[in-house]
Amino acid sequence: MNHQPALAPSPVVTGTRRSCVADVITAFSTGLSFDDLPAAAIEAAKRSILDTLAVAVAGTRSRAGQSAINAFAARGGGGSATVMGTPFRAHPSIAALVNGTMAHALDFDDVWADDDGVVAWRGHPSVCVLPAVLAAGDAEGCDGATALLAYVIGVEIAGKLGTAFGPHLGRAGFHPTPILGTLATAAAVARVLGVDRERANVMLGLAATEASGLCRNFGTDTKPFHAGHAAQGGLQATLLAREGFTANSEAVTDYLKVHSGPDEADAVAVLETLGKVYDIVAPGLSIKKYPCCRFTHLPLDATFMLLEQERFDASDLETLTIRIQPGADDALIYKEPRTSLEGKFSMEYTLAAALLDGRVMLASFTDEMVLRPEVRALMKRVRTEYKPEPGAEAVARVPHGEYHALATVVRGDPANPLSWDEILQKCYQCLEGILPAEHVDQLVDAVERFEQLPDVRHLTKLLCAENF
Amino acid sequence: MNHQPALAPSPVVTGTRRSCVADVITAFSTGLSFDDLPAAAIEAAKRSILDTLAVAVAGTRSRAGQSAINAFAARGGGGSATVMGTPFRAHPSIAALVNGTMAHALDFDDVWADDDGVVAWRGHPSVCVLPAVLAAGDAEGCDGATALLAYVIGVEIAGKLGTAFGPHLGRAGFHPTPILGTLATAAAVARVLGVDRERANVMLGLAATEASGLCRNFGTDTKPFHAGHAAQGGLQATLLAREGFTANSEAVTDYLKVHSGPDEADAVAVLETLGKVYDIVAPGLSIKKYPCCRFTHLPLDATFMLLEQERFDASDLETLTIRIQPGADDALIYKEPRTSLEGKFSMEYTLAAALLDGRVMLASFTDEMVLRPEVRALMKRVRTEYKPEPGAEAVARVPHGEYHALATVVRGDPANPLSWDEILQKCYQCLEGILPAEHVDQLVDAVERFEQLPDVRHLTKLLCAENF
Repeated sequence: MNHQPALAPSPVVTGTRRSCVADVITAFSTGLSFDDLPAAAIEAAKRSILDTLAVAVAGTRSRAGQSAINAFAARGGGGSATVMGTPFRAHPSIAALVNGTMAHALDFDDVWADDDGVVAWRGHPSVCVLPAVLAAGDAEGCDGATALLAYVIGVEIAGKLGTAFGPHLGRAGFHPTPILGTLATAAAVARVLGVDRERANVMLGLAATEASGLCRNFGTDTKPFHAGHAAQGGLQATLLAREGFTANSEAVTDYLKVHSGPDEADAVAVLETLGKVYDIVAPGLSIKKYPCCRFTHLPLDATFMLLEQERFDASDLETLTIRIQPGADDALIYKEPRTSLEGKFSMEYTLAAALLDGRVMLASFTDEMVLRPEVRALMKRVRTEYKPEPGAEAVARVPHGEYHALATVVRGDPANPLSWDEILQKCYQCLEGILPAEHVDQLVDAVERFEQLPDVRHLTKLLCAENF
Repeated sequence: MNHQPALAPSPVVTGTRRSCVADVITAFSTGLSFDDLPAAAIEAAKRSILDTLAVAVAGTRSRAGQSAINAFAARGGGGSATVMGTPFRAHPSIAALVNGTMAHALDFDDVWADDDGVVAWRGHPSVCVLPAVLAAGDAEGCDGATALLAYVIGVEIAGKLGTAFGPHLGRAGFHPTPILGTLATAAAVARVLGVDRERANVMLGLAATEASGLCRNFGTDTKPFHAGHAAQGGLQATLLAREGFTANSEAVTDYLKVHSGPDEADAVAVLETLGKVYDIVAPGLSIKKYPCCRFTHLPLDATFMLLEQERFDASDLETLTIRIQPGADDALIYKEPRTSLEGKFSMEYTLAAALLDGRVMLASFTDEMVLRPEVRALMKRVRTEYKPEPGAEAVARVPHGEYHALATVVRGDPANPLSWDEILQKCYQCLEGILPAEHVDQLVDAVERFEQLPDVRHLTKLLCAENF
């Protein structure tokens, strides 16, 4: 006789039995209102929303973004949701997939700021949550205050789940961004679509079943795909739950377990801080100033401080030495990068480009720029040394002496934030040549008064490009 | 300084480094040709293809199917792929999701036959693979021989992966159907779309990242959704890989590990039998005769044998006793079912319906049928007893004596197969009232000469219904 698990279901559960974890999440996500949001959370949300839209549109020019657009949106289909930075529209499930992938494709999107190493495991929330919130809003309409609230709900849930998992998640081989992002996205979209608490609870069991993503795909286009996949999964769970689909909300408890996570009791303790401690305010999201590996950022900050403080010519430079803590260049594996992508993971290239060009921006990362003879020559003068103290120190040796500059907190972290003007500069850089120029100012204006928008489609239509 | 794993990618791999597991799968899936298929595999494939199409169309009437159609296909969107049993068309990714969900919604689809308990862990392959093969064929065209070959490739890969995982997969909390089905589906769709070996290898790393599904959702609509989700994931991986998307094919090795699977070496040993031993031939797929839990099937077979061999009136019956091995009714948890779905997991209801109606079919599982007073009365006379030997014995006690019948192999298993006529009867039962009557004969004809179809769209257009 067979004992086939696939044919031996446990008792039928239609969502009325609740796991504690799922219920804590749902109590927060369905109970919070826009008026509950602290002003600092609203402000932080607007900064990240503008930044995420800008990097998503810029992502149309990445290989991952172009492949995703070609695979899903460029031929046939159609639908009610905008594929950002293109003339295409798609089913919301497809739009969430493509937009999420594009938004993470350049690794230029926001990420949790450092907080004693703990938040390192929380992944990238905005690129999962925002594309799905806007795809749902695009398809069915939603006012700006609701969309902003939904975005904050998703980011907070991603942050708390990441804290509950701790480092186990990544160490077990699972990529935190999609594992956290699928549930976070579902809760956010449920708020856009007005799903009630009972249905939202069911939806979490369904989202838990969709969460996936393996770290082994880091360094490939599949890393950004993970963000799109989480956006798609969360949106799909919500669409189904709204139609009366059943799931077992206790699957959230198993989701914590199978991804090498914490006991339910530990997770509940963390999740009960939802709405009491806003992660988007502290530790907050770090907005990237440079479109390259985060390990290059503090050295770049120190180098730019040096260039601002002291006047010397790159041609006079004998050596530029970067002093950092051991481990603080772990991901910078390319001493002699040959391609755009390798350049993003090269201490030597990024610092040489900073010295030569006085800036490091999207245009710095083309194969041609990386292979310039003058930059190759300068790269030979860049050295790395290790020191016990935190922070990155840039030391320039010139014939007449040495200059020093020390950077301790990454520019873009909430403790050393980019100004609104700096975010706007990044935004213009990302959107230039893709969106019509008149759209860009209107887009910035729409994000600045996001909570007053009667319909987010006012904003999403500004993300359409005529050509691709 | 940060040590953020999401920002610390491993060296960039674009698919040129191959894990052994991925390469073994790809060598088979891209190297096999239709002429290599044994006749028995072709025959088995046609039986399962017709059966899967029939139960998918019948699934339009399930709650899971209706919710999925409403959530994804009934409003807006459109696209190039058929949503079976409806007038709707959708993006292939959406069609695969909805059709896979519908095909598994009634739990009336095929499943691996028993083979010393091992194959119990292989899940349901057809409901993942076939919907995605046809969605891809629908969108871009494909001849019947290629589609049949692709289906067999997918089924074989699902079977071998399931054997490689063994019981660990389900015990760890993962549902075998989608975990196996995502990779199997990707390989099948790659064959439909003519993806080369290098790209197919990359695609497996991408599919591995999408595989998910938790056993905790058994007994809810999310169990059939797992089939649709695997179909969608496999198709999406293929569409992206074809466009030049990169992934790390070694993610397949991690996929085996994180789902509590075997060492790579063990998996390779099993996978190297691909194309040498056809699982679709032996142990083969069991085609379900009754639309209810498989644990009821052997008792039902014994009861029908009794009814055919002996003439007695249900009203004369004092008791019907079913003698089975301990454990052989584990999933039959409803002694007094009140709903259609509970009735499918009730020894008492299914046997009483068999005695009263002389058959057990889709129409037997409505709330009204389950609640009939005459069936409730008869259910009180059904007993279960345990015995050490395998097989189900039905013992009818009537005033003038006892009748006995013994069933040892489930009707529908390859060792006791349904005749083609019985499969046709099931097919007519499933399609009645949903597809136009003239389509049904044409559909059967198209499946019978499947490998001769110049374009599978000849078949898929027969699956369209005018109303929903």
